[in-house]
This record gives sequence, C-alpha cells and structure tokens, in this order.
Amino acid sequence: MVNKEGGDSSYGIGVDIGGTKTLIIGANGKGHTIFKEKIKSSQDVETIIAAVDRCIRATGISRSKIVGIGVGVPGRVNSAKGIVLDTPALKWKNLRLKQQFQTKFSLPVFVNNDVNLAAIGEKWLGNAKNCRDIFYIAFGTGVGSAVIANGQIIEGVTFSAGEIGYFIDKDDIREGRTNSILNFGTFERKTSGTALAEKGVEYGYSPRELFVEFQKGNPKVTPIIEDFVSEITIAIANVVSLINPEIVIIGGGVSESMGCVINAIRDRVAKITPISTKIELSKLGGEAGAFGGIAYVWEKAKKNKKLEGKK
Amino acid sequence: MVNKEGGDSSYGIGVDIGGTKTLIIGANGKGHTIFKEKIKSSQDVETIIAAVDRCIRATGISRSKIVGIGVGVPGRVNSAKGIVLDTPALKWKNLRLKQQFQTKFSLPVFVNNDVNLAAIGEKWLGNAKNCRDIFYIAFGTGVGSAVIANGQIIEGVTFSAGEIGYFIDKDDIREGRTNSILNFGTFERKTSGTALAEKGVEYGYSPRELFVEFQKGNPKVTPIIEDFVSEITIAIANVVSLINPEIVIIGGGVSESMGCVINAIRDRVAKITPISTKIELSKLGGEAGAFGGIAYVWEKAKKNKKLEGKK
Repeated sequence: MVNKEGGDSSYGIGVDIGGTKTLIIGANGKGHTIFKEKIKSSQDVETIIAAVDRCIRATGISRSKIVGIGVGVPGRVNSAKGIVLDTPALKWKNLRLKQQFQTKFSLPVFVNNDVNLAAIGEKWLGNAKNCRDIFYIAFGTGVGSAVIANGQIIEGVTFSAGEIGYFIDKDDIREGRTNSILNFGTFERKTSGTALAEKGVEYGYSPRELFVEFQKGNPKVTPIIEDFVSEITIAIANVVSLINPEIVIIGGGVSESMGCVINAIRDRVAKITPISTKIELSKLGGEAGAFGGIAYVWEKAKKNKKLEGKK
Repeated sequence: MVNKEGGDSSYGIGVDIGGTKTLIIGANGKGHTIFKEKIKSSQDVETIIAAVDRCIRATGISRSKIVGIGVGVPGRVNSAKGIVLDTPALKWKNLRLKQQFQTKFSLPVFVNNDVNLAAIGEKWLGNAKNCRDIFYIAFGTGVGSAVIANGQIIEGVTFSAGEIGYFIDKDDIREGRTNSILNFGTFERKTSGTALAEKGVEYGYSPRELFVEFQKGNPKVTPIIEDFVSEITIAIANVVSLINPEIVIIGGGVSESMGCVINAIRDRVAKITPISTKIELSKLGGEAGAFGGIAYVWEKAKKNKKLEGKK
C-alpha cells in the first residue's frame, strides 16, 4: 500500500550519479531521511545498482513500501524511455538505465538529467517550495540549468533544454569564441567553478577563497568576482525576461561561496529587467539532485495514479 | 452539438486586437474560414464586441454551432481569469475582457496575449504544425516572443513570459542602457521595426526597403541589416540553448521582408549553438494571432471536455 501523498508508510529512493560521486538517499513523502550514502561513481552501472541495493537492504524496509527510484545523471536523458542518451562525464551512450534498474529492483524507475532533478528537489524541500515557475542554475565543474514552468520540467524536443553553458554574447563572437558539443560552452568558460579556479590559480586562490578575498576587499580578486557577477547577472536577467519565473535558485558547488554576492546579484538583475523575481541560493546544496530524484518518484506516482483513475 | 475535434459542423471565432487594427476570423476545426474582417481597433470594448457580433450574424450560422471566442490583446493577460492586466497600446488596465464578451455572447471566451496566440496559430495551421516545442518571435512595432513547451504556452508567474524585448547584453550595460516597464526594451530598441525605421530614415528607406537594398548590395544599408541579423541571431541561439525548441518561427511585420536573410540566420544560429533547431518565417503572417485565437478555443474546449469526462 502506497499513500497518495507518500506519507510515513512509503518511501522513495533518489540516486544522483555525478561524474565522481554518487549520492543515494531514501526518504518518505515528507522528506524524512531513512538513509544517505555517498559512494564513488562508476561507469559500471551494476556497481551503482549494487550500492543502491545494499542501502535499501540495510534499512530493513520491505520492498513493498518503496514507491520507486528516481535517478539523475549528468547528461542528456530520454526521460520517457529512461535511456541515457549521452553523459560526457561517464561516457555512457544510449544506455538503458531505467531497464537495468528495473530488472534488479522490480520497482518503478524514473531517470532524468541531474540538474532537472536538483530543480525538482528545491521545489519539493528547498527554497522553491511550492513554486510552479522556477529557474534553477548550477555553477559547478560546468554550468547547467533547469526550467520548471507550469509545474513541469521543460526538457526540450531532444532533451537538451537548460544548456545555458552555451549562452553567447557579442564579445564572444568578436573574439572568435563559439560553441560545440564537445567543449565547455562560452558562458561556462567564463562562469563555471573550473573557470574561477583557473582565474584564481594565478594568485594562489581556490574559487572559495576568491569569494573570501573579495569580501575582504582584496583588489587582485575584485575584478574576477565582479566579472563573474556581471556575467551571471545578465544571463539570469535574460532568462527572467523570457520565462518570468517566480524564483531563481542558484545552486552547484560554487553557490556555497556566493552568500557575499547574492544581494549584488539581486540588485543588478532588478536593475536590468523590469520583470521581478526572487533570487535565492540553493537550500539543499549537493543533496538537491538526490532529493529531487525522490520528489520525481512522488510526482510520477501521483500522475500514474491519476491515469489509472481515468480508466 | 460540438464535434470533439471541431469538425465541419462547429466553428471558432478568433479576435486579434492590435494597437491600431483588430482582425476577426471565423473558421471551422480544419481552418476553413467562414469570414475574415479587419476593423479599426478601439479602446472601447463594446465597439469591438459589436463588430464581432456583426460578423457572426452576417454568416447566418446558428450560435449553437460556435464553440467559443479566442481573444488576443497586445499586453499582459491573466488568462485563467480572462482579465487584461495592462496593454500600453490600448491603455486597458485590469479589464474584465472575458466577462464583457461572455455577457454579450453567452459563449465560452478565452483571452491571452496576442503573441502567445500567434504562436498557437502557427502550431495549428502554420509552419510549426504539430510541434510541441516552439519558440515564436515577432518583430513588429516592438519585439515579442512566445514559448510553447510540452505543447503548453509558458505564461510565467505574473503572465509576463516572452518579454525578449528586455534581452540585454554587455554593450548595453557599458553604454548605460537599461530596461524599464515604461519604455522599449534594450533588445527591442535595436531590432524592432521601429528601430529599423529610425535607422533607415537617414537614407530615405523604410524597413522593407532596407532589406531590398541589402539584397542589391547597397553598402549604406549593409551594416544596418548585418547588425540586425547579428543581434537576433544571438538572441535566438541563446533561447534555443535554453529551451531546445523543435522550431523557431519568426513572425511580425518585419518578417515579411526577411526572406533574404533567413538562410544567414539559420547558418549563424547553427554556428553559435550546438543545439539544433529548425528556423522558419511565419506562414500565417498577420493572421497568426486571430487563427491562434480559434486554435485556443479548440484547445480549451478539448481540455474542458476531458475534465468533464473525469467527473
């Protein structure tokens, strides 16, 4: 028996497969966590599946109380079929991930892009709680984003939506920069954690230290952070003008250091687009994707229940 | 009796209220037109309603065969309530347009933004036929856009989505340009028909003539059109990267002269974003909004039918 709302008696499993680490969380419909485990990522799906199985067994919860498994991967996913189309970080191509999980667990399995799931996670338990129109942008190794409109993830016709890393401007074009599927995008090369790390290395600072030094007024790092804020402000403002989200959530590893610039970002976005929005840092941080996997299970379970009700 | 698909025996009415002209079209579910009339727009809603009433009466079709009326306005609309929030062109504010139409006609009435309806029109009978993920951009007096994702119009939390006229870039910021609700947006000031007219006037050319002269290789107008193409190419590419539409439709009055640059736009967009898409000029031109009004009626009627079926 599964509660419609996913109450205390039923559980969802979220699996956020990253390039280096995989986070596995089990929680009930209120987000009460029954386990949380981080393992090294593996290109071998069976290794990940075995870890998920171990986690579930360790809780002692009966399989019948688990509503499903939501899996996020850092790449393009045909979510309708549960096929990973491509993931540069894990080198998977046309991988039937849903099928492999289902064969093992005999449970409903839902697969989507990791950034999409992080947005769903923030919508469920984070700073975008109960919002129907959300823009989520993550600054990590690369830069990704997710659009939720009318409460639905915008996946795009080839499941490529959210590729804000490819945002380009006139300076890029004047200077001959362009975008290709194989490389970091033009926006990503300016604003990712990787880009900040490259800029900071000259002065011996990590991205996190760049923000700390910026707060102290260190004149060497000021232009680096000013540029970063200026770049992301323009991108966020343009997305806000286009899709009019209730809230913009800034996530990804870099966001953990961005408390000192969040007000500047808010002020500048409000200055350059008249479409107003809230802007917040991620609440769930690195756990947004795995919690999003669980929320995705509840969403799909409810939808399927509705469809069944129609029959 | 109303056919589910809006077949030959039932009709929809589309009313596209523009700043200067209002187009009224009646058509069946296959798009076969039973009347088409253009009148001068009026700030007085009753004048428009009277014209719609005249059109319907003139056809001699019984009221019971009309499924509903879809009305587009050049402004922000609370489509759920059918209230026009604001329309600079007509100076309406919090106007209960749906209610006024319904009082007169005792028919279902659906109101939305004119650009959103134009996108729905292209989806129904134009170059975006049967596409679920569409980006529509219109270059007219101003610049507007509409996003259809998963087959649904993205309206935004305050019904302000699609305001691409506010797109801004680093050049704008360096030169002190910004956006406010009362003025043309930064992108609009560079790419609207109004902007092209202002640039052309120096050489004695209308926007249409600018494109003709460009084709002839007139060196005076070349930079004007090159700039225009470059600006809109960047904006379109960024939207494509963000929402991954199957097709981009370029509409609005200016688009009627853009046949000579459409290939250049396609090539450049493909060069600066690796997310592929089709790009086409509008097929329905100035009639997209009114036909979209009719399509909107069918959509809503089907949806309501489904909801009734659930009861």
